[in-house]
Amino acid sequence: MNPDTIGVDLGGSHLRVALVDCTGTIGHDVRLETPKDGWRAVLTALSDGITDVAAAGRADGIAIGAVGVGVAALVDDDGVARYAPNLHGLIDVPLRSELASSVGLPVAVDNDANVAARGELAHGAARGARHALVLTLGTGIGGGIILDGHVYRGAHGFAAEVGHWQFDPHGRMCACGEPGHWEAWASGTALGAMARDAVERGDAPSVLARAGGDAHAVTGLHVGEAATEGAPDALAILGEYADYVALGFAGLTDTLDTEIIVVSGGLVELGDVLLGPVRDRFHAHLEGARHRPPVPIVAAALGEHAGVIGAAVLARDVLA
Amino acid sequence: MNPDTIGVDLGGSHLRVALVDCTGTIGHDVRLETPKDGWRAVLTALSDGITDVAAAGRADGIAIGAVGVGVAALVDDDGVARYAPNLHGLIDVPLRSELASSVGLPVAVDNDANVAARGELAHGAARGARHALVLTLGTGIGGGIILDGHVYRGAHGFAAEVGHWQFDPHGRMCACGEPGHWEAWASGTALGAMARDAVERGDAPSVLARAGGDAHAVTGLHVGEAATEGAPDALAILGEYADYVALGFAGLTDTLDTEIIVVSGGLVELGDVLLGPVRDRFHAHLEGARHRPPVPIVAAALGEHAGVIGAAVLARDVLA
Repeated sequence: MNPDTIGVDLGGSHLRVALVDCTGTIGHDVRLETPKDGWRAVLTALSDGITDVAAAGRADGIAIGAVGVGVAALVDDDGVARYAPNLHGLIDVPLRSELASSVGLPVAVDNDANVAARGELAHGAARGARHALVLTLGTGIGGGIILDGHVYRGAHGFAAEVGHWQFDPHGRMCACGEPGHWEAWASGTALGAMARDAVERGDAPSVLARAGGDAHAVTGLHVGEAATEGAPDALAILGEYADYVALGFAGLTDTLDTEIIVVSGGLVELGDVLLGPVRDRFHAHLEGARHRPPVPIVAAALGEHAGVIGAAVLARDVLA
Repeated sequence: MNPDTIGVDLGGSHLRVALVDCTGTIGHDVRLETPKDGWRAVLTALSDGITDVAAAGRADGIAIGAVGVGVAALVDDDGVARYAPNLHGLIDVPLRSELASSVGLPVAVDNDANVAARGELAHGAARGARHALVLTLGTGIGGGIILDGHVYRGAHGFAAEVGHWQFDPHGRMCACGEPGHWEAWASGTALGAMARDAVERGDAPSVLARAGGDAHAVTGLHVGEAATEGAPDALAILGEYADYVALGFAGLTDTLDTEIIVVSGGLVELGDVLLGPVRDRFHAHLEGARHRPPVPIVAAALGEHAGVIGAAVLARDVLA
């Protein structure tokens, strides 16, 4: 029987450690705030969490084979986190070797979006795909590229940083410090910024009402709520946002010719209120769309669990 | 001994048929204008050219194994040209099967940029690369993506259409009918358009002089000539153009993490006058550039011969 593996989802605000079996089902599960006082503290928290989950599993008679970690960073082929602009500037931390020596299990580390793509490929909406994109519309845009049935990491492990293509040089500043990247127009964060701009122009009364009349409190979720109930102002904002999303999906599909696009992130809970206009605009923007097989755009299946499940799937590679 | 193969480079204005040996050396060689009176005429011209070259080769005692064709079209896995916006609207023409039955040799067909990438991979500047981009700055931007040592064609054979990413929604119209694609800013054609704009503003006297004082006759080559001699107005235009080129190279590298970028097209003859600023701007735009291994940006080695040599390399696959 295949041993279970432990998946770790290491984010800027929270970290999660979970035992996952070979069907992708989550067992013992620990969630913690990510320590803010340096990398030694983070490593200690990770190590303690893994040790606790492993002990709980073993107490139930479960064999544990390895640990996988997904982290919001550029991760090289040696499991060293090279660069993490959104994670306290993590630079050149040898996560894999440090963790392996402290927990006494084999450890694999990869970028969080690559790991989420592994989860969707093994147990979610990308199951059975040979060529797929798994894109997360969140604080930024996370990308996982599946080619020939495997997550594609590139020559140095840095592939699928899909948010940083120049999209509009006159537009919003990206978190990375360059102007007008796609991520600055099509992330979940960008939808909130668009909504606040619309509120400021007086164009989004129903969205403002959802935020209790506080223009600064408006987020993308308020747009989604109002749009779901059919408010025309919210639908207009969501339609414009969907076009930005679709323009990026089309550019990536022109480049990679994948057979399916899996979309994750909190906004996906809006379902076809968001994905409907994204599909329409994608078809309009894709080069030669009428001459290609259709490319389905579907919601991710694993939701917030994609991180730990995908990390546990990553860990299986160590055992293979 | 490996038999020679025949490479065909089928463009909108000219077609070329050449015998190529296993070292990438060109032997018998025929160049023709591409017939403008429909696809039957094109097929007949191709078939006649191939038959002539094959006969000349056989008369020299050369064994001929197969034919490869590169064409400016989306080509599916059955060798059917599905869509070719720049080639008289070629749609759904079964090039492979039609040619194979008329010339009596196995035939392989692929997109012209993919074929050029094969040529550079086998006999040119991408030799030995596992992950590479081969990008042609010409009328449009042609892209060939090499992953794990092979040309990547995607799920349906349509990958590497890298020019059609939204780059500036307020910008120039792309030939495909959408506004502001990268190709509309960074193709060879785009450099000519930028130069004519500069001439119109009175900002490019040395470039205008190269075109004999005729503003409408200005092309990118005049910019290149003047820049090579150090004319500040031409260097300024070329610097702006280099930034557009570099922004796209950076976006593609963020997505694909290739280890080298090979640049082809007539402008590459400018050498470091163009590639120097492209390299500088690329490094400035690439996400986390200081934390990655360097990505060399080099000139293609095969020049105008990449098409026939790459097509001949493609033909070898049929024999394998």
